Amino acid sequence: MSEEKRRELTMVVFSGDMDKLMAAFLIATGAAASDMEVTMFFTFYGLRALKKKNVRTGKSFFGKMMGMMEGGDISKASPSKYSMGGMGRWIFNKMMGAKNVQSLEELRKMAIDLGVNLYGCQMTMDVFEIPREKMIDEVKDVVGVAFMLEHSKDSFSTLFI
Amino acid sequence: MSEEKRRELTMVVFSGDMDKLMAAFLIATGAAASDMEVTMFFTFYGLRALKKKNVRTGKSFFGKMMGMMEGGDISKASPSKYSMGGMGRWIFNKMMGAKNVQSLEELRKMAIDLGVNLYGCQMTMDVFEIPREKMIDEVKDVVGVAFMLEHSKDSFSTLFI
Amino acid sequence: MSEEKRRELTMVVFSGDMDKLMAAFLIATGAAASDMEVTMFFTFYGLRALKKKNVRTGKSFFGKMMGMMEGGDISKASPSKYSMGGMGRWIFNKMMGAKNVQSLEELRKMAIDLGVNLYGCQMTMDVFEIPREKMIDEVKDVVGVAFMLEHSKDSFSTLFI
Repeated sequence: MSEEKRRELTMVVFSGDMDKLMAAFLIATGAAASDMEVTMFFTFYGLRALKKKNVRTGKSFFGKMMGMMEGGDISKASPSKYSMGGMGRWIFNKMMGAKNVQSLEELRKMAIDLGVNLYGCQMTMDVFEIPREKMIDEVKDVVGVAFMLEHSKDSFSTLFI
Repeated sequence: MSEEKRRELTMVVFSGDMDKLMAAFLIATGAAASDMEVTMFFTFYGLRALKKKNVRTGKSFFGKMMGMMEGGDISKASPSKYSMGGMGRWIFNKMMGAKNVQSLEELRKMAIDLGVNLYGCQMTMDVFEIPREKMIDEVKDVVGVAFMLEHSKDSFSTLFI
Repeated sequence: MSEEKRRELTMVVFSGDMDKLMAAFLIATGAAASDMEVTMFFTFYGLRALKKKNVRTGKSFFGKMMGMMEGGDISKASPSKYSMGGMGRWIFNKMMGAKNVQSLEELRKMAIDLGVNLYGCQMTMDVFEIPREKMIDEVKDVVGVAFMLEHSKDSFSTLFI
């Protein structure tokens, strides 16, 4: 791979916080709009961003508990600060909306439309008991860390968010 | 761009926490002292690091509220752990000072003197209603995510902090 | 350095949270298993990952206080969410164990066996008053930010975790 050809950006999305997911999707859509190839690898709490609306996850006792605590799809994410029982999300959405910034759900849709590649982390999906069918159809594949690293190796940058 | 010439480091500073800002500016000044070119792109809570002393931000109701909650300049940042109503900041400053580590404000000054480039994120400045004139004069420009990505593409590394 | 030879991954481990350390060591062992060279630079709260079992750190009043608050070795780390007075750690360990994911301690051991290089950050060890002898013998060296940056410059990617 010659240096001139590096137009790939890899992102490891660990966080499920509303504001960090906003940052992740704003960077991803910005990169895709600039004709870069974007690989997003969602792991741990970040998996929330890939969940279908109104699904329940978890089979074991702890899995169900985690499913409840991390309940809801991307629209239910709270900011990393000022969560205030849902108030923070509402305020952030108000402020973003007032400046015509898209909601998280719209940003994810735009990312998909621009060809951003969304991957789920196999291992954390297993641990948190989130099966593939509870995730949106647009998830390209469920992969391991080796897959992410191969993309990272070909990327001009890899962000851990 | 040939690989040998890569001496640029890009940082996306999302966090406004005292300890993460310390880490960011310690890396930035270390890099600049080693003759690297450093681009810092401040966004979301990280914008606090660029604010002038004793300014109030926000025009709308929510903007003013956010201005209060994220009130104060870089010297008012609290650590990500142990904030304890300002106690954590005081303890950290004591501990840093005892080992002759500079304060955040001094580190930012040193970064500026070493030629580190500080940029504000247009979009989050709009959302949080922080106008350019409330920021320190040394901010080089107010830019978008595409600008940051172009620097990232030329950098040997991009850190998301 | 030609681009084809880039097989090094650098990680700045700032966090001492159980889940972030899991992510860091899973990526590190995955990379090392794929024959990449991995440099982990532990700083701030991340230093916990290098501490020996049952050591007390700190000399000054604040150093001892910090030693207590950040007390314990890698097995005492709590997740970034759901710490719940140790409950979160217990639940996470249960869930990981049920899916045959190694504990943090085992992951660190595997990283060491695979040749991952562990470094402590001199400056934060000084500030938090953690002497070298309180750290596990496998720590390769205690270094500064310039050392980390040199590795970053040779790496295909640098993650800030």
